[in-house]
Amino acid sequence: MPPPRRFILTIACPDRTGIVAAVSGFIAEHHGWILEAGQHSENESKRFYMRYEVLAESLPFDLSQFRERFRAVADAYDMRWSIADSSVKKRMVILVSRQEHCLADLLHRYRVGELDIDLCAVISNHRDLESYVGWHDVPFHHVPVPAGDPEAKNAAFAQVGELFERYDADAYVLARFMQILPPSLCERYAGRIINIHHSFLPSFIGARPYHQAFERGVKLIGATCHYVTAELDAGPIIEQDVVRVDHSDQVDDLVRLGRDVEKAVLARGVRYHIEDRVLIHERKTIVFT
Amino acid sequence: MPPPRRFILTIACPDRTGIVAAVSGFIAEHHGWILEAGQHSENESKRFYMRYEVLAESLPFDLSQFRERFRAVADAYDMRWSIADSSVKKRMVILVSRQEHCLADLLHRYRVGELDIDLCAVISNHRDLESYVGWHDVPFHHVPVPAGDPEAKNAAFAQVGELFERYDADAYVLARFMQILPPSLCERYAGRIINIHHSFLPSFIGARPYHQAFERGVKLIGATCHYVTAELDAGPIIEQDVVRVDHSDQVDDLVRLGRDVEKAVLARGVRYHIEDRVLIHERKTIVFT
Amino acid sequence: MPPPRRFILTIACPDRTGIVAAVSGFIAEHHGWILEAGQHSENESKRFYMRYEVLAESLPFDLSQFRERFRAVADAYDMRWSIADSSVKKRMVILVSRQEHCLADLLHRYRVGELDIDLCAVISNHRDLESYVGWHDVPFHHVPVPAGDPEAKNAAFAQVGELFERYDADAYVLARFMQILPPSLCERYAGRIINIHHSFLPSFIGARPYHQAFERGVKLIGATCHYVTAELDAGPIIEQDVVRVDHSDQVDDLVRLGRDVEKAVLARGVRYHIEDRVLIHERKTIVFT
Amino acid sequence: MPPPRRFILTIACPDRTGIVAAVSGFIAEHHGWILEAGQHSENESKRFYMRYEVLAESLPFDLSQFRERFRAVADAYDMRWSIADSSVKKRMVILVSRQEHCLADLLHRYRVGELDIDLCAVISNHRDLESYVGWHDVPFHHVPVPAGDPEAKNAAFAQVGELFERYDADAYVLARFMQILPPSLCERYAGRIINIHHSFLPSFIGARPYHQAFERGVKLIGATCHYVTAELDAGPIIEQDVVRVDHSDQVDDLVRLGRDVEKAVLARGVRYHIEDRVLIHERKTIVFT
Repeated sequence: MPPPRRFILTIACPDRTGIVAAVSGFIAEHHGWILEAGQHSENESKRFYMRYEVLAESLPFDLSQFRERFRAVADAYDMRWSIADSSVKKRMVILVSRQEHCLADLLHRYRVGELDIDLCAVISNHRDLESYVGWHDVPFHHVPVPAGDPEAKNAAFAQVGELFERYDADAYVLARFMQILPPSLCERYAGRIINIHHSFLPSFIGARPYHQAFERGVKLIGATCHYVTAELDAGPIIEQDVVRVDHSDQVDDLVRLGRDVEKAVLARGVRYHIEDRVLIHERKTIVFT
Repeated sequence: MPPPRRFILTIACPDRTGIVAAVSGFIAEHHGWILEAGQHSENESKRFYMRYEVLAESLPFDLSQFRERFRAVADAYDMRWSIADSSVKKRMVILVSRQEHCLADLLHRYRVGELDIDLCAVISNHRDLESYVGWHDVPFHHVPVPAGDPEAKNAAFAQVGELFERYDADAYVLARFMQILPPSLCERYAGRIINIHHSFLPSFIGARPYHQAFERGVKLIGATCHYVTAELDAGPIIEQDVVRVDHSDQVDDLVRLGRDVEKAVLARGVRYHIEDRVLIHERKTIVFT
Repeated sequence: MPPPRRFILTIACPDRTGIVAAVSGFIAEHHGWILEAGQHSENESKRFYMRYEVLAESLPFDLSQFRERFRAVADAYDMRWSIADSSVKKRMVILVSRQEHCLADLLHRYRVGELDIDLCAVISNHRDLESYVGWHDVPFHHVPVPAGDPEAKNAAFAQVGELFERYDADAYVLARFMQILPPSLCERYAGRIINIHHSFLPSFIGARPYHQAFERGVKLIGATCHYVTAELDAGPIIEQDVVRVDHSDQVDDLVRLGRDVEKAVLARGVRYHIEDRVLIHERKTIVFT
Repeated sequence: MPPPRRFILTIACPDRTGIVAAVSGFIAEHHGWILEAGQHSENESKRFYMRYEVLAESLPFDLSQFRERFRAVADAYDMRWSIADSSVKKRMVILVSRQEHCLADLLHRYRVGELDIDLCAVISNHRDLESYVGWHDVPFHHVPVPAGDPEAKNAAFAQVGELFERYDADAYVLARFMQILPPSLCERYAGRIINIHHSFLPSFIGARPYHQAFERGVKLIGATCHYVTAELDAGPIIEQDVVRVDHSDQVDDLVRLGRDVEKAVLARGVRYHIEDRVLIHERKTIVFT
């Protein structure tokens, strides 16, 4: 039995008394049934964040009417807010280079329905994974990014930008995409581009983090799922995890063990994002799990 | 800077629309500031559970007035509810036998203020830990429980029962107390007696769980903090954790490694309990962390 | 750069002095280079276990000569021993029913070369995964197992037995194969049949462990990879792991979260097995990781 | 029953064939019983490391005779080596400032015999913990370290240096000692000074790591036990661990949750060190657990 259709309301506003009462009052007034609730006050900035899942069929109106009627409440509390319909699948585009473990993991979850999305396309700077993606009936775009030729690189990212625009996705997932997106794309799609970094950030920023980890002799290696910003590997962190290693593990072992952490962390981060569980507060995230 | 004084409201009632609106409406009406909120619907039983932390100074009345005024809301929704004042320390009694690691851990957290409680007394069936407890200025009661003499045993537990009654505590913590409490005590103090069992329940119920774990060759050992009921090791679970072991670990190693898990799990469970974060639903718990 | 060719020597024998000296002396005498070593003494049974990885090219002879020459050492210490050549791929057969996550995970690791095996075939009592397996160029055998018809069931398992014999594999992996193998198969292929059980054994033996876990209200759920014996879910454990859950997780959530643990635990267990890292001691395993 | 007396042999030498045979041959020749063995080859530097635990009573000679007789083997392979007697307690000095959780944890393990050491003294730049240490019958030295007065600071560390020399310990443990040791001490006692850093290094080097972690919004916080070198927080890592946090955890929560990780990580690191399980290889460690 699939879960019932829900409206997912997320709110950010200045913190004050009465917000929860106003929101829950609005919902109760229309006999709405709250299935899940999360709320959080940021102490220093005095911002308030909340997320409600409301049973769609318990409300006497649809999403557009919800939007219209809720506006008065939202305005009274100076809210930035959004409402989503769980029956409308989120649109996703995946970017990948040659390493396929994260892509394969996401494709599998997509195929068996665990990840209930509309997978619009896969974009890659290599052709290696074209047939694999094709087998899943997902469009594949090959956009080569030539090294050492700034103009060709710009052209490539212009093409990526066009694809981003064409698909107008809710999530652009860099599933081991080994290219740095230009700042203009990062800014335009802020809060919608998700990366998996193969280290426990802020340790080992930049290239070859497993080599860095090996050199330093750490006893745990990790992975970090974060939103992409113009500053490399510094965007708001959505999810992290680690796995134990020891002196007998060579770089190749770290890479192998790390793949499993990367897959798991990215899958959780993507899930939180498409379920509207992640709210961004400055350089950090609130994740209502 | 200590955290501010809070009123902690916990509620259990039949699930229906409007509960959150009624409760948050009541609080908003009196300009109460909600610091933390948790809620949960039990699908099958259609019971609703919630927990609010409200800034005490934001409300225009004290606890007894809160109780009086809130009654109308509570009655309308058929609530079982309680309200606690964070500035009133919870009363705790610890029971221990000879193994002291859990006791020492709790005493340390108590002494440095991490566990902000009124530690009424320690009860033990042995004298081994008397001076150690004494150094912490905590009353110590020695109640020997003779093996193999049912009458003497009954007398001993009658004395334990008197101490329970005298101290009227919010929590009776069995910190490796190697005696089985009589059903009458378990029932009378249901929801207030907390045990640490040295296995990952329901694996290895009963005696010598580390020996059982060693015999079975498990690759992880664990500990379980649970409320005590008349049925051995079957009460509602509050918290659990595990640690990795391997073939080279002998029973002594399991005991040693397990001690650290026991301490950590008991400390977390006790903390959740005294912060009124644990609500019991039949044989299970809801823990608002 | 792939790892170099190695000879993997595993030994079990009565414990006494001089074993390591005899084995390492034999290897040193022929200028063999030991890459990795593990050893373990079972205290109670006084059995000794060891595993060596020797660089193949450092030895002046091949596997059959090794076998011949080492016999004198082995006999002197009453060893049960085996030697494997890392360049000879282990043969594997996977059995699966309808749930595909474990199969998909193993197929992915096989396809990208992480699991360096000869994947002989997939056997299933359903046709659901036939095309998916086919895409990987792996033979697929559909052997329906009719419920409630003992004779037809026997015939089905006779067919499974023939496939086992035909492929003569080093590992028969039950990757969520929801049928109980007959004792005759379990005994004949003892130490070669690997199962993934979807609970932290010995908790929740038998059917629907996630439902059992939900009912009990545990705070961690797990998975167990073990050798199959005639006694249900009681074979030697190779690997286990857990993931944290809470009161908000319904059975469906446990199933979803558990899938990731099952995949990870099975993949690790299978890897240990095909790298000859697992030695069975009565009902337990020694795993030289 | 306590574990039997063992000789613990650790060796580092250039890697070549025959080392294990030579060492195990020497032991077998004298009918020595190997209880535990670990070995490791560093690929790049071609250094070989090993550790043996030999049952003392199985050998016909004592430690000094072992040293004498083993010299020929050691010289033939250019070994740096040491041999320890498990019945001779390791000498330990603990340094602490005001935060007592790590000290209390170590004292508890010492008092109940889990940490089987000779605890020579506690040195502190404050008097806060004097009576607590005194209750454990351990000498306490108060060495105030005046801030902002370089000469007085030098004098203080000269006094610390004298205490180091007087006690001639096997381990100097900085159990949340909030002063930076002068390079001369770090160098003189290289490989014997152990620090617990309250972050998952190399993240958050330096002061106030929990504040740094909070600012960055990480989803796990950690602790690192490492040898102290002249370069701040850059010494060889012995052990690390992490704990999950989320957006609701404020700095105070991170500090509280982190304390438990610090205690556990330091206790494990100290145990590995006093059992001669840690060998230092350049900036990294080999830990034979």
